[in-house]
Amino acid sequence: MAPRSTQILEAAARLIARRGVRGLRVEELAAEAGVSTGLIYYHFKDRTGILRQTLEFINDRAERYTTVDAAKAEPLAPREELEAVLLLELQDTPVVRENSSAWGELRASAVFDEVLRDDLARATLVWVQEVAALLGQVRPTAPAPALAAAGERLTALLEGLSMRWLSGGLQIDHARDLMRGAINAELALLRN
Amino acid sequence: MAPRSTQILEAAARLIARRGVRGLRVEELAAEAGVSTGLIYYHFKDRTGILRQTLEFINDRAERYTTVDAAKAEPLAPREELEAVLLLELQDTPVVRENSSAWGELRASAVFDEVLRDDLARATLVWVQEVAALLGQVRPTAPAPALAAAGERLTALLEGLSMRWLSGGLQIDHARDLMRGAINAELALLRN
Repeated sequence: MAPRSTQILEAAARLIARRGVRGLRVEELAAEAGVSTGLIYYHFKDRTGILRQTLEFINDRAERYTTVDAAKAEPLAPREELEAVLLLELQDTPVVRENSSAWGELRASAVFDEVLRDDLARATLVWVQEVAALLGQVRPTAPAPALAAAGERLTALLEGLSMRWLSGGLQIDHARDLMRGAINAELALLRN
Repeated sequence: MAPRSTQILEAAARLIARRGVRGLRVEELAAEAGVSTGLIYYHFKDRTGILRQTLEFINDRAERYTTVDAAKAEPLAPREELEAVLLLELQDTPVVRENSSAWGELRASAVFDEVLRDDLARATLVWVQEVAALLGQVRPTAPAPALAAAGERLTALLEGLSMRWLSGGLQIDHARDLMRGAINAELALLRN
């Protein structure tokens, strides 16, 4: 992707995380990105185009910060990799906070506005299947639907815990402890 | 509470569920409730007063539709009561849909706006402790912190699943199956 588009999407993620998706206006985005509104329309066509590309952008970014760096150390055991992938979404860093706020806001906006629903469903499914695959490495004899259901629950719980954390009702360390507990509970269920 | 205040709060919940909290304007609320803006300011002082009272209103309403009617039938076993209380939040009825949309929206708005954070934290804690108490009736020998953590997870998962359902990414029957699975997983963990 051209650097200019990336610059615009970075600005869009920042604005959505700061004030929400419903207040996002193209003029404001242009100012935040330091480009003209014309350039934004050239790259993204309309507001829907901006939102869809921003969703993809924050997913790609999450993919990067949750990917365990294989070059850095010894490969992780399947169980550790599963924990790492989920817990890396619960870090109090500017990029995770911004990304999770923007994701939660895009999800919340889809309650009122149908335009992002398919993209959100697709992105969620990819995420669920990624977690189900990691669960399957830990419990290779578990049935695939049980792995998928556990993946759905762990990712939905992560969204719920993130929203509580971001809205000031849950400390990040406690959110991480709760997530570890859920992983234990799901893995125990998959052993039966 | 006076009927007029209730009428205003019903209208506020309806508007928030329909278009979100950030677009809520007092003039619009007055029109929806069929009262004057003066009456709204008289009862709720300002926009923050409206939002705080609406949060309480939707919590009271959820309390009513999740309370298992003891007069109606034989008392439920603890395990059944726990399931009922959680699954009654996942019903495709107008009131549950409206209430859950408004709750999710108030939670999402607290990411950007601090004004509701304490009220949300308080309401969440009451809910977590209610679920922890029901879990304790099923598993009376489990340690209290383990029951509380399970209550936090089950309620956070419910919020996550509700948002997926309301944003069109999850069918309600499947959401209920996932919730039942989580209850099984947590109860198995609490037996150990």
